[in-house]
Formats: sequence, C-alpha cells, structure tokens
Amino acid sequence: MQRVLAYLNRNKKQFLDDLCEYLRFPSVSAQPQHRGDLDRCATWLERHCRAIGLQATLCPTSGNPVLLATTRQGRTSRKPHYLVYGHYDVQPADPFELWKTPPFEPRIQGRSLFARGSSDNKGQHFTHLKAVEAYLKTGTDLPCDVTFLIEGEEEVGSESLGPFLSRNRARLKGEGVVVSDNGMPGKNQPSLTYALRGVVAMEVILHGPNRDLHSGIYGGAVDNPAMVLCQLLARLRDARGHICIPGFYKHVRPLKAFERRQLSKGRRKDADLARFLGVPRLFGEAGFNQVEQRTARPTLEINGLTSGYQGDGSKTIVPSWARAKLTCRIVPDQEPRQIIEVVQRHLKKICPPTVKLTFEPGHAGSPYLVAPDGARAMAAMRAMKTAFGRTPTLKREGGSIPIVVDFKRRLGMDTLLLGLALPDDNPHSPNEKFDLDCFETGMVMSAHLWNELGAL
Amino acid sequence: MQRVLAYLNRNKKQFLDDLCEYLRFPSVSAQPQHRGDLDRCATWLERHCRAIGLQATLCPTSGNPVLLATTRQGRTSRKPHYLVYGHYDVQPADPFELWKTPPFEPRIQGRSLFARGSSDNKGQHFTHLKAVEAYLKTGTDLPCDVTFLIEGEEEVGSESLGPFLSRNRARLKGEGVVVSDNGMPGKNQPSLTYALRGVVAMEVILHGPNRDLHSGIYGGAVDNPAMVLCQLLARLRDARGHICIPGFYKHVRPLKAFERRQLSKGRRKDADLARFLGVPRLFGEAGFNQVEQRTARPTLEINGLTSGYQGDGSKTIVPSWARAKLTCRIVPDQEPRQIIEVVQRHLKKICPPTVKLTFEPGHAGSPYLVAPDGARAMAAMRAMKTAFGRTPTLKREGGSIPIVVDFKRRLGMDTLLLGLALPDDNPHSPNEKFDLDCFETGMVMSAHLWNELGAL
Repeated sequence: MQRVLAYLNRNKKQFLDDLCEYLRFPSVSAQPQHRGDLDRCATWLERHCRAIGLQATLCPTSGNPVLLATTRQGRTSRKPHYLVYGHYDVQPADPFELWKTPPFEPRIQGRSLFARGSSDNKGQHFTHLKAVEAYLKTGTDLPCDVTFLIEGEEEVGSESLGPFLSRNRARLKGEGVVVSDNGMPGKNQPSLTYALRGVVAMEVILHGPNRDLHSGIYGGAVDNPAMVLCQLLARLRDARGHICIPGFYKHVRPLKAFERRQLSKGRRKDADLARFLGVPRLFGEAGFNQVEQRTARPTLEINGLTSGYQGDGSKTIVPSWARAKLTCRIVPDQEPRQIIEVVQRHLKKICPPTVKLTFEPGHAGSPYLVAPDGARAMAAMRAMKTAFGRTPTLKREGGSIPIVVDFKRRLGMDTLLLGLALPDDNPHSPNEKFDLDCFETGMVMSAHLWNELGAL
Repeated sequence: MQRVLAYLNRNKKQFLDDLCEYLRFPSVSAQPQHRGDLDRCATWLERHCRAIGLQATLCPTSGNPVLLATTRQGRTSRKPHYLVYGHYDVQPADPFELWKTPPFEPRIQGRSLFARGSSDNKGQHFTHLKAVEAYLKTGTDLPCDVTFLIEGEEEVGSESLGPFLSRNRARLKGEGVVVSDNGMPGKNQPSLTYALRGVVAMEVILHGPNRDLHSGIYGGAVDNPAMVLCQLLARLRDARGHICIPGFYKHVRPLKAFERRQLSKGRRKDADLARFLGVPRLFGEAGFNQVEQRTARPTLEINGLTSGYQGDGSKTIVPSWARAKLTCRIVPDQEPRQIIEVVQRHLKKICPPTVKLTFEPGHAGSPYLVAPDGARAMAAMRAMKTAFGRTPTLKREGGSIPIVVDFKRRLGMDTLLLGLALPDDNPHSPNEKFDLDCFETGMVMSAHLWNELGAL
C-alpha cells in the first residue's frame, strides 16, 4: 500500500497534465456540432486506459460510444468486482463571454483547475483511474477487480446506457458501483451521499398567430403567446415556493427526523450562500431549510425562455410563438412519468382557447435512495476517513445521476456516491473548476477504497 | 391634368422598376450592421429625386440622414406649401427562414410586390414622388409647392427628426403634411385616418444569481428570475384583456357614439380575421369590438422574451437573468411619460425582494387625434373619391406614426393620413407586400390631391 501511495504522490504533476489533455476535448453532448469531439475524446480515453494497463474497449451504441476498461483477466477471478462509473461528456459552455479564460483551455490558478468538465465529471472519475494505475504500475495486488464504465451521454439523459447495461449484464455484474459525480460539503469534510433527486425535462410551446404580427395593427384583438406563456408558468409556483400542480407532491416520501438532523449538519449560513450566489436573499419552499430545499424537496424550474424579437432595439410585434424549457427535480418516491403527466395535464387545463399548446419531451431520471448503513457504505466511509482525516457525513444530494437508478434496476447493484466536487466548483456554469486538493486526496481515497472493499 | 394622368399610366412599368431598385437596399435601422445600407439607400433616393426634377439635399443628423426634396423655387412662391413625409428605413427582416423569397429581392406575384419595406413605407411614399414627377415631366403647373421629407429612423423612434424639424422650421412650414404610412380597409375602400395610437417601448430585466446555476445543486433555494419575470408580466393583464396597472387608463378619452359607428363600418368578421391570423379565436379587452380594440384602446404587449438556455436539448440551470421587451400602444389622451411611470412603478411595487429589477428605456410616441371635417381633410377625401371611385370612410388606426405628433407640436401643422396598405400586407412580418393596384391608384390619388389642395 505504501508503494501505491508513494506512486500517487510522485506522479501528481503528470496526472494533472494527463487530466488537462483530457479536458481539452470540447465533448459537449447537447450540441450536434461537437459529435466529432466526443468521438475524439472517447478514443483518447481508450488509449489512455490501455497505457495505464487496463483492457479497454470503446463500445458503440446508438448514441455516443461507451468506454469499458477493466483489470479483470477473464471471468475466473474470485476477487470482488466493482464498477466505476463516469462520463466523458460535458455541459454546453455557453455563455462563453462569461468565462475568464476559454472553457476548453485548462488553467491552473492557486489550487483550482478551471475548465468545462473539470469537476463534472472528468476530474472526478480520473481519481479512480489514477488510483488503479498506481496499483498496476507498482505491481501491487489490487484487492478488487475494477471495471471502468465511462459514458458520453450523461448530460443529455444517458439514453444509450440503459440498454447497454442490459446487453452487457454478464461482464458488468458485481458487488457494487462506485461513482464520484457529485459534491462534498468542504475540502475537509468528506461525505457519503445516500439519496439523489431525479429530473424531468420538457419544453412547453405556445402557438399564437401564424406569423409575427404588427402590434399596432393587430395588437389588442389577438392573444399574445408570450403573455399566455407567462400567465401559465406563473401559476405553477406560488409566493411560498410551493408548486401548484395537483398531484405534484403526492408520492413524496416524508423526511425522517434523523435525516433532517444529518442534512442540517455544517449547513452554510443562508446569508453566506446568498452572497456567494449574488442574490439579495434566498427563496424556497416554506417549511424547509435551504439544504432540504436543495436536496430533498422537488422543484420546478424555468431553464430557458424564448419568444419574439431578441435583437438590438425593439420590434413592435405580437410574436407568433413562445416557448419555455422546464425541468422538475424530483425526490423519492416521485416517478418521472407521473410528474410529466400532472404537469402537462395541469397546463392543458389552464391554457386559454386563444392559443395552441404543445409539448416536446426531454430527458428524465428517477430519484435514488439507499440505506447508508450497509457493509460497503461503511467500508467507503472508512476509506474517506483515512484519506481526508475526518469522519464523513451522510447527505442527500439535489442533482441527478439517473444512471444510478439504472444500475439498481438493470444490474441489481447499489451505488456508493463519493463526491469530490466543492460547493463553489460551478458545474454547469461559466468558470467551472476542480480543486487540486480534492483531486489528490480523491486518488488516495480511491486507493484505500479498493483495500477496504477487498477486505469485506 | 389629363397629361399628368396619361404620364402616370404610360410609365407604370418604369415606376415599378424604380421601386424595386429602392427596395433592394436592406435599410434596417434597428440593426447596427446595416448602417452602410441606410446611407447607400438615402444617396440613391437623393439621386432619384434629382432625376425627377426636384431640388434634393441629404441632410446629416446625429443619426441617419434626412432627405429633403422640393419643387419650391426660392421662397417667393405664393402657392400653398405641403410636406410629404415618408421613411426609407425598414423593420428587421428576421426570422428570415419564414420568407418565401429573400426579403430584399423584390418579387412580383399576381398584383402583389413582395419585399421588406414594400408597404412600410417605401412603396407608399413613392406614389407621391411619382405623382409630382408626372406634373414636372409633363410641364404641367403643380398647384402646390411640395417638399418631400423622407427620414431613416422611423422604425427606431425618429429620434433625429424632432430636432431637425425645429432647426428647419422656416423651409418646412406650410399648410399641412401628407402621410401615406398606414392602411386602408380594402382595395376599393379608401379611408381617411383621423386618429393614431402612440407607442411606448421598454425592456424589463430581472437579475437573479450572478451566474447560471446548476438546478440540481441550487434549485429550490434560490429564486428563478425567469419565473419571477413570468409572474410579474402575468399580473399586468387579466383574463378579460384588461391591463391591471393602476393609472393605466386614467387619461383615455372615451369613444363617442358616432366614432363607434364609423369604426364599425365594413368591419371584418371576427372569425375571418381569426382565420387570417391563424389563431383559434380572437382575444381582446371585454366591452369593445375587434376594431376598437385594435385602433382605439391601449394595449400592453410582450414583444420578446429571453432567458437562460435556448440551444438544442436542455440545460439544467437556474438562469442568471431574464428579460422581456414590452410595448404599450397608447391612445388619446395618454402620454408616454405617464405610461412609462405607471408601468415601472407597478412592476417595482410587485417585484419580490429575491431578485433585482431594472429597466431599459425604448422609443416612445404620443397618440394623435385631429378633427376630420376641416377643409383640407375634405379636399383629400374628394381626391380619394375621384381616384378610387368610392366614398372614403373615416377611421382610427392602431399603429403609431409618432412623427405626426411632432409636426403638430413643432411646426403647428396637421397631417392628412392617406393610407394605401391593405390588411394583408404583413408589415413588420415575413413576406411583407404592397398591392400594385394600391400603388397605381395611389399615384392617381396623389395627382388629384395637389389639384384639390391647390384650389382651396
């Protein structure tokens, strides 16, 4: 084990260079123009895994390829087998003008590595790759078999991965899944995540006149689809942060008292969070604190609004259409299908007869909840404690890792969520970063993790 | 007079070619990239006026140049002097993909001439230019002195023109102004417009977090500026089409019974208009019919909405900001300043403390109302009747010609509004057109007009 840790320590600089190379690929899965970049990024990763000493294969899917890279020699091994999941695709980088330096030219400042994908998720799964590399390159016996499964569609709903898991059950099946694609409360506060929110995305489109109309000539006698859109969306959330859609909260599992205590541990002050986000004050569902609102309560957000004229100056029109991108974060035991249904049914019900309402479906993922006191969870907590020198906390997380639900459903495997992102990492925002301490300690944690899991 | 009419008839084809040449300039005043096109268009027009036999000058302003072209020889003339107003700038042509053929390549189909600016306003003021050309080229004594004033900022609020009128009072002063920049009810139904709506434009901006936020990590505890924008705008208009802003209707002059009768003459059926506009049904302020709603009642329209992610797929964010372009159409005796004040005051009052609200000012123009029974109005009605063979109706119009208010205020002159646009001309929309019958009969009407006005 000493050799493994020494290898990790000795090669820090090289690992950082490797990661920067990986981050230079603009592997944006939401934007068709980056299709080639995704392929190049996946091919680079495959080659990198082989150089580490893994058996790596790029598996085609109906979407972007999935990388499988394993330490397993045949299927006769009697070691416990774990999957490490990650994704090589990233969120769109726009608005570009808000980045201090270009999103795909990694920049180090202090202990921060700035680049799109640094924290979400290339930097995080790289820690596990490097820990395994340390075992392989030092000739140390790795107590587990580890298979890396790195996909390219996480940011657009992981559509190909579910079928891929089902098709490859035999080679993927094992004791559990390890995922670092989420956050920890602070540099010195490791944490095990036992629940995740799910997500449901859709687009709402209101169709008014068959063309943009002169607002002087027709304005006053024809309904304005942008106004109707505002009026419909406005009615979905009240002034107390409650979502006003019949049936929306029906399947929400109430929080237990011990959960509320755990979730509130080391909570940031509301005023501090408001200052960090640059808002005059926080706003959320009445009756729940800020952490509960962000991790354990469902939401409905407008992600984008588009209608009419958006250029310089003004254009005096009644726009022909208006559209909004919406997402709901959902919590155990809400299910995407039911939420889509109640949202759409309610909008149809309140839509006036002066416009036409249509929907475009988006991606969806169920929420996740697992008992935090199993043997593997305890082993992971020990590995964290050893690496970080602190007792980890238990937490829920507000983001969605839909694939975690698929691991359970399709492979029957639970997932250990060992997040390494800090609260100010700006995932999905301009100036995304990954902390170099989290990177380095994360590699050490992963090295211990295989030891702990192998000893069970 | 016969020679004038014969000249107009003989040269129809040439006039159409001239107009097409004029329409090829993409003289879009709202978009900075077209600055050069505006200059080229104005220079072309100056040369064209000189070729007709007018004394033409392109007068620089702080914005786009104003063309003055006159028949007046010195200031000793004892003929009555009239201004003809028009504008050589046009609305933006986007969305381009909805045009059947390119907006700046004029296309004739049947009796329609398709091009951006064909109806609003190049084609309309061209009729007066050609009528005067007919007098000059046939050596016929023109009974009035006519000065053309063609500006290049009408679509962005005519900011330079007010000061220009004040600076040039002496050479512009006269008996009245003739403007064809509006509509007529049908090909065989000429009409004199005695009232116009004004306009007030502004942009409403809601500032939320200092960057787009990951909706999984922060969603639920921070307000969404797009949602707040919707909630604020939604409250500005109720389900009966009433604008719910205290003080908004305070200065509206009630419609007289005779006006309501005149305005309802030859009114299109609601179902026909709805079909033409492609909406399931009309919608407007309760208690007023469709014509009154469009011409004699104030409105508040959302012209554009912009927030968050607008690209392909979805982006799970709480957007950093949201903005809406708004315009109010205002009616006599509402004034822009008062309307801006009540709208902004109300929005500030209802805005929650979780976001920041700011405004960006836009252009504004007062409404206009003039008695329809003066001598010049009667002369104009006779010219219309002679040319079109039908008794003209009296009407109000819903669009804004802010400059008409300036002619009154700065030069003390009333305006004859002799619109030549048909209801299906699509001004400000894709596939704008001008009717060739309106073009040709409009030239004949203008020829008679100078005779009638000269005889007063």
